[in-house]
Amino acid sequence: MGELNIGLIGAGLIGRTHSIAYRMVKGFFTEKTKEVSLKVLAEENEEAARNGAANLGFDEWTADYRELLARKDIRLVIVAVPNYKHKEIVLEAIKHGKHVLCEKPLAMNAPDAKQIFDAAEKAGITHGIGFNYRKAPAVLLIKRWVDNGMFGDIVSYRSSFIQDWGIDENGPLSWRFQKKLAGSGSLGDLGSHAIDMARFLIGEVSEVVGTVSTHVHKRPISTGGLGHKQDTGTAEYGKVDVDDICDVLMEFENGAQGGMVSSRLAPGRKNHFEFEVYGTKAGVFFDWERPNEVLFSSVDMPGDQSGFNRILVGGFQHPYGENLWPIPGMGIGFAEPFAVQLFEMIDAVLNERKASPGFYDGWKVNQVLDAIESSVKKRAWCKV
Amino acid sequence: MGELNIGLIGAGLIGRTHSIAYRMVKGFFTEKTKEVSLKVLAEENEEAARNGAANLGFDEWTADYRELLARKDIRLVIVAVPNYKHKEIVLEAIKHGKHVLCEKPLAMNAPDAKQIFDAAEKAGITHGIGFNYRKAPAVLLIKRWVDNGMFGDIVSYRSSFIQDWGIDENGPLSWRFQKKLAGSGSLGDLGSHAIDMARFLIGEVSEVVGTVSTHVHKRPISTGGLGHKQDTGTAEYGKVDVDDICDVLMEFENGAQGGMVSSRLAPGRKNHFEFEVYGTKAGVFFDWERPNEVLFSSVDMPGDQSGFNRILVGGFQHPYGENLWPIPGMGIGFAEPFAVQLFEMIDAVLNERKASPGFYDGWKVNQVLDAIESSVKKRAWCKV
Amino acid sequence: MGELNIGLIGAGLIGRTHSIAYRMVKGFFTEKTKEVSLKVLAEENEEAARNGAANLGFDEWTADYRELLARKDIRLVIVAVPNYKHKEIVLEAIKHGKHVLCEKPLAMNAPDAKQIFDAAEKAGITHGIGFNYRKAPAVLLIKRWVDNGMFGDIVSYRSSFIQDWGIDENGPLSWRFQKKLAGSGSLGDLGSHAIDMARFLIGEVSEVVGTVSTHVHKRPISTGGLGHKQDTGTAEYGKVDVDDICDVLMEFENGAQGGMVSSRLAPGRKNHFEFEVYGTKAGVFFDWERPNEVLFSSVDMPGDQSGFNRILVGGFQHPYGENLWPIPGMGIGFAEPFAVQLFEMIDAVLNERKASPGFYDGWKVNQVLDAIESSVKKRAWCKV
Amino acid sequence: MGELNIGLIGAGLIGRTHSIAYRMVKGFFTEKTKEVSLKVLAEENEEAARNGAANLGFDEWTADYRELLARKDIRLVIVAVPNYKHKEIVLEAIKHGKHVLCEKPLAMNAPDAKQIFDAAEKAGITHGIGFNYRKAPAVLLIKRWVDNGMFGDIVSYRSSFIQDWGIDENGPLSWRFQKKLAGSGSLGDLGSHAIDMARFLIGEVSEVVGTVSTHVHKRPISTGGLGHKQDTGTAEYGKVDVDDICDVLMEFENGAQGGMVSSRLAPGRKNHFEFEVYGTKAGVFFDWERPNEVLFSSVDMPGDQSGFNRILVGGFQHPYGENLWPIPGMGIGFAEPFAVQLFEMIDAVLNERKASPGFYDGWKVNQVLDAIESSVKKRAWCKV
Repeated sequence: MGELNIGLIGAGLIGRTHSIAYRMVKGFFTEKTKEVSLKVLAEENEEAARNGAANLGFDEWTADYRELLARKDIRLVIVAVPNYKHKEIVLEAIKHGKHVLCEKPLAMNAPDAKQIFDAAEKAGITHGIGFNYRKAPAVLLIKRWVDNGMFGDIVSYRSSFIQDWGIDENGPLSWRFQKKLAGSGSLGDLGSHAIDMARFLIGEVSEVVGTVSTHVHKRPISTGGLGHKQDTGTAEYGKVDVDDICDVLMEFENGAQGGMVSSRLAPGRKNHFEFEVYGTKAGVFFDWERPNEVLFSSVDMPGDQSGFNRILVGGFQHPYGENLWPIPGMGIGFAEPFAVQLFEMIDAVLNERKASPGFYDGWKVNQVLDAIESSVKKRAWCKV
Repeated sequence: MGELNIGLIGAGLIGRTHSIAYRMVKGFFTEKTKEVSLKVLAEENEEAARNGAANLGFDEWTADYRELLARKDIRLVIVAVPNYKHKEIVLEAIKHGKHVLCEKPLAMNAPDAKQIFDAAEKAGITHGIGFNYRKAPAVLLIKRWVDNGMFGDIVSYRSSFIQDWGIDENGPLSWRFQKKLAGSGSLGDLGSHAIDMARFLIGEVSEVVGTVSTHVHKRPISTGGLGHKQDTGTAEYGKVDVDDICDVLMEFENGAQGGMVSSRLAPGRKNHFEFEVYGTKAGVFFDWERPNEVLFSSVDMPGDQSGFNRILVGGFQHPYGENLWPIPGMGIGFAEPFAVQLFEMIDAVLNERKASPGFYDGWKVNQVLDAIESSVKKRAWCKV
Repeated sequence: MGELNIGLIGAGLIGRTHSIAYRMVKGFFTEKTKEVSLKVLAEENEEAARNGAANLGFDEWTADYRELLARKDIRLVIVAVPNYKHKEIVLEAIKHGKHVLCEKPLAMNAPDAKQIFDAAEKAGITHGIGFNYRKAPAVLLIKRWVDNGMFGDIVSYRSSFIQDWGIDENGPLSWRFQKKLAGSGSLGDLGSHAIDMARFLIGEVSEVVGTVSTHVHKRPISTGGLGHKQDTGTAEYGKVDVDDICDVLMEFENGAQGGMVSSRLAPGRKNHFEFEVYGTKAGVFFDWERPNEVLFSSVDMPGDQSGFNRILVGGFQHPYGENLWPIPGMGIGFAEPFAVQLFEMIDAVLNERKASPGFYDGWKVNQVLDAIESSVKKRAWCKV
Repeated sequence: MGELNIGLIGAGLIGRTHSIAYRMVKGFFTEKTKEVSLKVLAEENEEAARNGAANLGFDEWTADYRELLARKDIRLVIVAVPNYKHKEIVLEAIKHGKHVLCEKPLAMNAPDAKQIFDAAEKAGITHGIGFNYRKAPAVLLIKRWVDNGMFGDIVSYRSSFIQDWGIDENGPLSWRFQKKLAGSGSLGDLGSHAIDMARFLIGEVSEVVGTVSTHVHKRPISTGGLGHKQDTGTAEYGKVDVDDICDVLMEFENGAQGGMVSSRLAPGRKNHFEFEVYGTKAGVFFDWERPNEVLFSSVDMPGDQSGFNRILVGGFQHPYGENLWPIPGMGIGFAEPFAVQLFEMIDAVLNERKASPGFYDGWKVNQVLDAIESSVKKRAWCKV
């Protein structure tokens, strides 16, 4: 236990989600986070910062993130800004000795990520990275079973994170469609979650080969925010120079194999993050569009009952069941994994422990992303 | 906008949920609830009150709800205690001119509910009742379509709210299993939601006939709390005098017909609240175990495409999409409908409007519950 | 084994299905049915009979079913004609000592059904009734588990057989919409399956209460066949005097309770026959729209794995797995249960055994149907 | 119309399925196949042939397929034997001027397949290949929509055909686990279906890269048949030299991209053949484990109704709806696509037309299989 003031940098969709997660942390982990508060918001210009503070409920705000980082009363910083700014901000935060929870992907490439990781380790700060889906109770349950050996030797991992909002050609040219701001397209945005999940559940990826395509080549230049929403009144178009779709094969150090798909051009798919894992003893399927459900099959089931068991998470037998909702199937939403993630980060800071996933994981995911991009350019398998 | 202090009476599972919902209100409806605060907790004895305050994050607490109600600085009271205490507490709250959000069912019977409703109306307070499932975005979307005439004339409503925790014979004899404390068993606990949903979507119920059964006739006497969890160390058993299972036929004033099922003895069902509505132009299916999904079918679909469309709620085209999660399928959990419910209550109080559902709805549901119980006793159809 | 010639009376949708089932019997149960053949078709007038023979592949046909029944070389007769003709034809068949497989419901009312049953018993023929869904491998698996005690004491049965083709007001006034030809509407047509399934899995129904409604009161008079398809060119309308929708509560002799729904006015539902059974040890859900899947939950599942297991039928561990498809999930269609039904009938005839379900079951279902109709008229619970 | 005698070579699982399909052809397409008969069975040794004839219902049988091919009264031959025998038998059949329906994959490699295709074309016979899943009504519906332009430009295809029977290490070393008999493992067995489906729906595959693994390296030497079933009493083990699992990336000539997975080591998956297709206007998902369902989403859906529509196939608005089952959702099983396939083959022979898919398609699939195997060996993308 202890006092802990948090600063948030970025008031976009994900910044807002962190601010909501903070409130749920206070509801779900009340006693342990009594003296924790989310104190200051930084957003890029004065108007945006002022509006952001109003929208997200901050009393204090600044248009200069350096000001936030310079404050002595802030111990933990959440960085929720476009990818290209991560490095500058996180390094500065580390310089001030702040603990940092940074959004994914950690950096625009693996060397930058390594630099950030090294700086963090050297400074001895606690660092975390926003792979929120890891913290879904369903995923934590699967991880528990993986660790308990319930899957035997894992042989396959496949994942698909696909959405459809990119199909609209009049959707604005947000930072997410620009290589210099985002690094990559669906790959870094969605695929990074699928890669992190692979590492979390299976282990290190050894080699990859991928292929990408872009089908919407230009989009109206947006004067608005970072979000998905379309604004109007502009006739000018800018170039999309990132992938809409990415398909990847993966091989793992432990001998498992599989793949990963990311796409913004999948009509009908809204926030479809599914994965399946098969081992010599069991199989599992998860889809975030049904966040309460783990579909599990074990070779130990009676022969006439072999199938996929649909388990509703919740209750004291499941991870965080007591903290979140004590009855299975009450219902996990988008905020809960963010709340678990933030709680674990806070808990790590207060107890001077490492957080997981941390910048090491961010770096490893960036390595895989880089290897995928290399493999696309070279049309060849690339070692991670 | 304006200042509004809230008092919470009851620190059980649902009291806790309201306290979490309060935090989400601050996250989802930030600007409009700036000056709102959840201030005091009342729980029955000192130890429970002190523990509750710690668990739920209250600075102020009392073991005497009358003390809470007597405070001038409290304008809105949330009542989340066992059913048999609703009447006494709510009437007292009304006497003090408090606005009240009371848990369901409103009272132990319809005459009591009417008395509460009349008192509330006479006092001119804003009153709401905790039929939280009404406030799920998926349900609000269905309601919008019902009101828009997309279903044509509604001909059928069927609902099932079934769970399995009662199957454990060693589960403690909580208040939920005692007629004098709960009024009825699965009927009032779960069935009241199915009845409220019927009234919300279809209209007034005119006649009912039901049948009930109890299969676990005695349970260990619990010395613990209100929850579902079993405690040990007692060899004494007490009598269960409420229904485990209730099946009901319903007829509606507008000519629709259908039914309702509630059960605590349905192995495998955790929090399974499903309903389906059919009209001359469309059909819909919803199940809280998949809270993001509306299954919708319209007779206007092309002939070769007729089927149930699985719509993921979220985003600006759906109710509260902008406030909650701006992308479809991000994920609605248990807290969101409670947050919408509390926000609407707060909004009604601040704007001196009626809330919906209010005590009138609570009374009408109690009437249906009473009619069902009469029909069971008389083995006959009963008018509501 | 032995020789067995079969005659089919009725060349409508279901008659055709029996003729297809016959062919599958020869494919699935080849050796045991070597000397079985489907020999003669009877259909009401010459043209219909000739067309039917061509469509269904018969060399021999007659427009007079008496002719078919008089033939010495026919031992088994399948009766697939509108309900009102069952009695006359089946009694005549019995008179000739034929074994009979009759479509459901057996008769227009329970006394008639009893008369048929008594005549059949007295004559010592083998008699079966076309409750085809009983013979789905998934249902036979559930029945095996019920008989093995895997459900403990059964406490609940609920079923819904709903379709949407009645929603079209221009659908013709086929015999299915006329009381004097069909007996009842959705109740006898669809509900009879749900009632038979209840008896098969749970036991005898003791009391019922139901409510019905008709929303499409007149339909164009059809000059065409028996099917669902609309014909045109008629401006005349006739009265619909049967139920479109029927909701029923049921109590069973063994203490279980539940209900049954039938409807032709459920937009989006095509051939939706679902039921669920709950006992003190297990629960199960089945829906014919997913005919390969049994959803099963047992209280013996590990606590953290409690859920509904989706079991794909097929393979040697499941009923008729070797005969039908030897790998789970290969796929059961509409013909397979009809084929199993016909094979069991043939097998019973060849081995001079009773078939199950037989006319006794047909009579019991008619009793329940009559009780439901009485309960609707009297607005009261009725004993079966 | 016309007379047509068919010979079947192979009495294993799939040979039996063809014999059942033949019977359903007679039931579903009665008039058009009046003079068609399945006349002779060839199976490798006398005992197997005699047993096969009994099991499958043939009067005539031979242990020498050459004898069958030499018969003047046989016009169409179905070849359902292990892959390594296809070439010899099919070439011999062509020599005799027989029309041929051959099981997939057509040959052990693309050059052999080309040789077969060329010989067939030169001889002018009608040739078909057993990609039965193409003929599922659901798939034919999707194909119709693809051809109608409902998907716009197709951008993605992904497929997974996975089973779990290989997980049993005591499963016998059938021909399916031996390279010299099967060519490849899960790839040729299951993957060939996924590749054919890709070509059917999307177009030609241009480049591929794959990775494979084998986890069960030896299996008991079986003295029994070809099937999946385990026999006992042998202590000797033989080497498995084919893939258990194969993951592939695919690029298409029309710019679409995606992938394909095949596996026999996916616990819980029985006969799980799923694919999804996304275009600029629509998306679709199909899974053979739910063979009646097409999940379809169009960008033209109203904004608040965007989702996946679950369409139940059947009825006159869907492919072969009138011939198979005239009401949606009645139920398609494993036999129906085989029956459609055989009917189309018969129809093509009788009308002296080409069948589709034919040996050209078989050859193209073998090319993709070869390219995948090359890509695995070379660890590189390979052109098809």
